[in-house]
Amino acid sequence: MSFALPPVEAIDAPALAARLRQLMDNKTKPLGSLGRIEALARQLGLVLGTELPVLQEPQLVVFAGDHGLAARGVSAYPSDVTWQMVENFLAGGAAVSVLARQHGLGLTVVDCGVRHEFAPRPGLVIRKVAAGTADALERPAMTAAQRDEALAHGAALVQALPGNVLLLGEMGIGNTSAASLLMARLTGLDVADCTGAGTGLDAPAVLRKIGVLREVLARHPQAGAPLDALAAFGGFEIATMAGAVLQAASERRVVVVDGFIASASVLVAAALRPAVLQRCVFAHRSGERGHALMLAHLKAEPLLDLGLRLGEGSGAAMAWPLLVSACALLREMASFESAGVSRQEADTSRVPGAPQASASESASASTSRSGASSIAPQP
Amino acid sequence: MSFALPPVEAIDAPALAARLRQLMDNKTKPLGSLGRIEALARQLGLVLGTELPVLQEPQLVVFAGDHGLAARGVSAYPSDVTWQMVENFLAGGAAVSVLARQHGLGLTVVDCGVRHEFAPRPGLVIRKVAAGTADALERPAMTAAQRDEALAHGAALVQALPGNVLLLGEMGIGNTSAASLLMARLTGLDVADCTGAGTGLDAPAVLRKIGVLREVLARHPQAGAPLDALAAFGGFEIATMAGAVLQAASERRVVVVDGFIASASVLVAAALRPAVLQRCVFAHRSGERGHALMLAHLKAEPLLDLGLRLGEGSGAAMAWPLLVSACALLREMASFESAGVSRQEADTSRVPGAPQASASESASASTSRSGASSIAPQP
Repeated sequence: MSFALPPVEAIDAPALAARLRQLMDNKTKPLGSLGRIEALARQLGLVLGTELPVLQEPQLVVFAGDHGLAARGVSAYPSDVTWQMVENFLAGGAAVSVLARQHGLGLTVVDCGVRHEFAPRPGLVIRKVAAGTADALERPAMTAAQRDEALAHGAALVQALPGNVLLLGEMGIGNTSAASLLMARLTGLDVADCTGAGTGLDAPAVLRKIGVLREVLARHPQAGAPLDALAAFGGFEIATMAGAVLQAASERRVVVVDGFIASASVLVAAALRPAVLQRCVFAHRSGERGHALMLAHLKAEPLLDLGLRLGEGSGAAMAWPLLVSACALLREMASFESAGVSRQEADTSRVPGAPQASASESASASTSRSGASSIAPQP
Repeated sequence: MSFALPPVEAIDAPALAARLRQLMDNKTKPLGSLGRIEALARQLGLVLGTELPVLQEPQLVVFAGDHGLAARGVSAYPSDVTWQMVENFLAGGAAVSVLARQHGLGLTVVDCGVRHEFAPRPGLVIRKVAAGTADALERPAMTAAQRDEALAHGAALVQALPGNVLLLGEMGIGNTSAASLLMARLTGLDVADCTGAGTGLDAPAVLRKIGVLREVLARHPQAGAPLDALAAFGGFEIATMAGAVLQAASERRVVVVDGFIASASVLVAAALRPAVLQRCVFAHRSGERGHALMLAHLKAEPLLDLGLRLGEGSGAAMAWPLLVSACALLREMASFESAGVSRQEADTSRVPGAPQASASESASASTSRSGASSIAPQP
């Protein structure tokens, strides 16, 4: 299966951006007082191309795959947990199942390359490239053809999904290793700064994991370009997710990025199509070591910082209500004019007994904007 | 009206706490991987006295009042904005109106002492102690009798509310000043560290505000006890809220604390009844200078950190879905046993090709807990 990289145009709409800012600034609240939510609202308006954004039929997709590298002891859990957790997602007992129910998110689990044969059923999509990646310490985790197949699967999946929002989730024992490898290679950071405890390694085990990953990086010195790195380090769920992100961005869907693994997938997609980042809302800063640095590299300001390190899309689901709030505030809040509320500019001087400084004070206050003035989408 | 301080017993339920921890630790996820949400779930279980907590009929109450000190130019907005915003809350156009609709929160606005006569209508409760507090630079903001009346109003209000959760909101031009004064007096911190821009003062105006507040503190050197400080520095909305918090805590309702003003009210309540803090969930760290220090003083770990500085209960409403998630995860997630998912303890050694260290690695990982091991309720 071949993969044609979809076009992702830069969103350049200064008139709409100005209208969105004016709309938010005229709401009945002090300038900038909704903090990060104001930038979020403006971003969602820009991505959806409207002053009155409505998020429709949000789709949380959990991309699952196994990793040859897991045999090297880089995870605290056995590979079997990948398919067992897929069953748990489908049975409704996993964290992401609970959260998707709470928020009314469509939930689709994709077998991108799990080492297990699943019985078909609703909510499960089989797009298995192979039963797990190869051991990246021996050879590339996947061939170029497998990588392209996974990317194409991801793009086709999104084309078939309703709605205008894609929330990213994943499952794959060993996939923090793949994410750390991609991060190290694509950012140039030392792999020790990109590697954490994953599902719960202790400190000596993390050191061993770093040692393994350093060997893997040395094994593939030529894999510097994004697509080469993706093939060398895997996994199938990360490649399928990258294809989904590129397609969603191409369609100007909002992409809600979960934690470390999902961010690694976005890192690959953004290396291929930088304007992808304009469509991305980073849900949270994970407790996984490396994620804070990855977010900084992507110039991303996440919404939540709760020490989550579960994956599955659980952080994306938890941040979801904030996106709904941002749109609702933009659409539904009254303006100073419509609500008949006094502005600081015009009215401070009317305060009985106010000191003589109040007029200049209110004038300068009206021109000072919040620190959140940089609109989230990046070039 | 007299006020009898309600009893607030310390929650001391080690058996339930242990069961809650065991329940959460057995969920299908790595130990501690839900981060702050795990401690939140345990806290909610402890407050509601059950392993299967259900949050019912959540009530967001916006306490409104005016401040004599506002005439001293301590706010960027005129006092009239207080009543205008009350009208906006009731008309459904304010941020908190939008957020309460989104989340299905009951919304009640209480006139605790607004300088305006409101027409009665649904959603508005008139418990006006007086038309604004006195100027605290001249005399105590309220008399002891007024303070007790406000406290009693708050307690009676909560007694009449359904549900098991109280979310705090407030409106009152000038009330960051009252909150800063209470904070400085009750924590012993310098008032400069307790004072910020409020609705949007610029830096010189903040300096003038600090100067005014320093004078006010000097004017009431004897007001050191919590109830004395409350009377000296006001306001009616803060006192009514403190009464509501004490009553809610006494009934073991969950109290969701909004930003700087709501935290000041909790500071007073907790100084009177320390076990209040066990019932409090701190929704967010506000962008208002002073709030981070106040939270540190209260040993509170807020859920959100979004640079919000609007008040109204907007931050409490935005954090609300996380409380719902915490309870749902505790009630609905599968355990390793029920879902048939392998544990790291028993199964890592089965991983083919795993290094010899894996058995001890998994054993130590199983005993190392997340950093979020301190259950949120404080003594």
